[in-house]
Amino acid sequence: MREEGDVQAITVSSFTMAEYFSSEWDDITVAFPVNILEIDMINRISSKISKLNILVENTEAVSYLEDNLQNPVGVWVKIDCGYGRTGIPATDFSRIQSVLDGLKVSRWMKFCGFLVHSGHTYGCTTKEEILEIHQETRDLLLDLKQRHMTDFPDLQLSIGDTPSCSILEASEFQGFDEMRPGNYVFYDVEQSCIGSCHGDDIAVAVACPIVAKHPQRGELILYGGGVHFSKDRVNFSGHDSSGGTLFGRVVKRQSPNSLEWGETIEGMYLKSLSQEHGKVVVPSTVWDDYQIGDLLFVLPVHSCMTADVLKHKGYLTTEGKDLSRMAC
Amino acid sequence: MREEGDVQAITVSSFTMAEYFSSEWDDITVAFPVNILEIDMINRISSKISKLNILVENTEAVSYLEDNLQNPVGVWVKIDCGYGRTGIPATDFSRIQSVLDGLKVSRWMKFCGFLVHSGHTYGCTTKEEILEIHQETRDLLLDLKQRHMTDFPDLQLSIGDTPSCSILEASEFQGFDEMRPGNYVFYDVEQSCIGSCHGDDIAVAVACPIVAKHPQRGELILYGGGVHFSKDRVNFSGHDSSGGTLFGRVVKRQSPNSLEWGETIEGMYLKSLSQEHGKVVVPSTVWDDYQIGDLLFVLPVHSCMTADVLKHKGYLTTEGKDLSRMAC
Repeated sequence: MREEGDVQAITVSSFTMAEYFSSEWDDITVAFPVNILEIDMINRISSKISKLNILVENTEAVSYLEDNLQNPVGVWVKIDCGYGRTGIPATDFSRIQSVLDGLKVSRWMKFCGFLVHSGHTYGCTTKEEILEIHQETRDLLLDLKQRHMTDFPDLQLSIGDTPSCSILEASEFQGFDEMRPGNYVFYDVEQSCIGSCHGDDIAVAVACPIVAKHPQRGELILYGGGVHFSKDRVNFSGHDSSGGTLFGRVVKRQSPNSLEWGETIEGMYLKSLSQEHGKVVVPSTVWDDYQIGDLLFVLPVHSCMTADVLKHKGYLTTEGKDLSRMAC
Repeated sequence: MREEGDVQAITVSSFTMAEYFSSEWDDITVAFPVNILEIDMINRISSKISKLNILVENTEAVSYLEDNLQNPVGVWVKIDCGYGRTGIPATDFSRIQSVLDGLKVSRWMKFCGFLVHSGHTYGCTTKEEILEIHQETRDLLLDLKQRHMTDFPDLQLSIGDTPSCSILEASEFQGFDEMRPGNYVFYDVEQSCIGSCHGDDIAVAVACPIVAKHPQRGELILYGGGVHFSKDRVNFSGHDSSGGTLFGRVVKRQSPNSLEWGETIEGMYLKSLSQEHGKVVVPSTVWDDYQIGDLLFVLPVHSCMTADVLKHKGYLTTEGKDLSRMAC
């Protein structure tokens, strides 16, 4: 759902999402190396919105697209500044040049600039570590811009990792044109462990019915498993007894019927997940507060995956408005 | 899709699945402790099929159901024989009796018997370990049957863990009435590690497009991530270089256009997963066999989760028949 505001463009992670949002947004970047087998969907979306932006990182995709695109698209060249997942290594100048050579003569593809996701900041736990990665990313990208700005005077730089975008000072982003911190919308337990946010910045919770109570073990069983949360986990080194591997943290509801929540409950957390089950450790002090059929609110470890799985029954605001049933 | 055969009943893990299959199956067990908040769906399904079977493990659910059911249902009492997830501990005789007391006087609920899922066999790596758990489960359940058969002469015993059901001799199942080994349909890499099956028994693969090749690292990037596979992982201790944590194994396709596959490729495996990306380690000997846009076939670690996520584009037999577009 699009709200009024200054944001004119969005980034998504699949063409399926881009198509979903294409009825309300006119400038959409799919931040995943283009899958050329989806050419029909690319042509469909680019016939509908004025600015579909895709990512390339090899000449094979550039050649295929040149032969098969039917409408203009924007193209970001994906660069790897040390994360080691996708992108051309930032110092592999010849490979970058060969991709740019293809784009320069293209009928359909307009080169936008260099795009990076320095996801190795997700492994950091201090601001200093995040800053170090960010500065290395910045230096590599500014060098690339310098090298190619004669040929492409409008080329832009786009970064995307949520930790850097969340906690570094504005001065660290000089020279960049775009930020795409996807996890910024909701945050989650993982980002709070990294230090990108505080626990009370987390803006999404999963409401899970309690289906079983096991007093001998001090555990509740939820209808809320891997198909609802994903199986992302985090090693939580909090100051309370929730330390260790966990899959979600339980929060206090404001009142029994409220959709709003408050702080996390010390020592109460999602200990393990099966396909449909979630196992929650419960401190004895709050054991009697939870009954069969109550809804427990759980902050997810990875909100992107949790929000993207389709097994939830609805998607409510804290005022009870059902966003899942609205047109996008 | 229902095929002809001797099987007259199915087990599923959610009421959503039960409703999906209710157009073709008339005897469905939902093997998850009943979520009383789904009472409307329960009443809808039980009005449509003649035998909907649910699981209870506490008196709260029994009381709620007695007040709110609108049609007869079968009820299995979930028992825990040592796994420690759901179910009344097999030796907690008073709690079992209190649930049975509620069922005995019920208008709507017919007690079917005791049901167990000894999922602790998933942690085993030898037949002896699996046999030990199975025999303990059997002894506990036969004792419960003995205790309650006077009151309920038709009570049945149902077991479900795939490792026991796959590799133990028929004589070990004397006294049981029903098996529900859900993973048996497809098997997967995890079951092959446990010893429930051989690698060539695995009957499902995910076809993932190659979107990037990184020669410096000897890695391919697939459009196939956590939203397609789930993030289940296994510590694989094979005899080849695929040892270590992995998220899937790559198999040889019979020919470039065939949907059939052969054996796993030594040293080629899914090393890590992001939301949409999968990173595949590729031995140098086969590096040139794979190009951008090719489909790689990957055996999942946990086929139940992989088959249940809804992000795949289709569900094909090896003959190319699309099962996902058929009525169930």
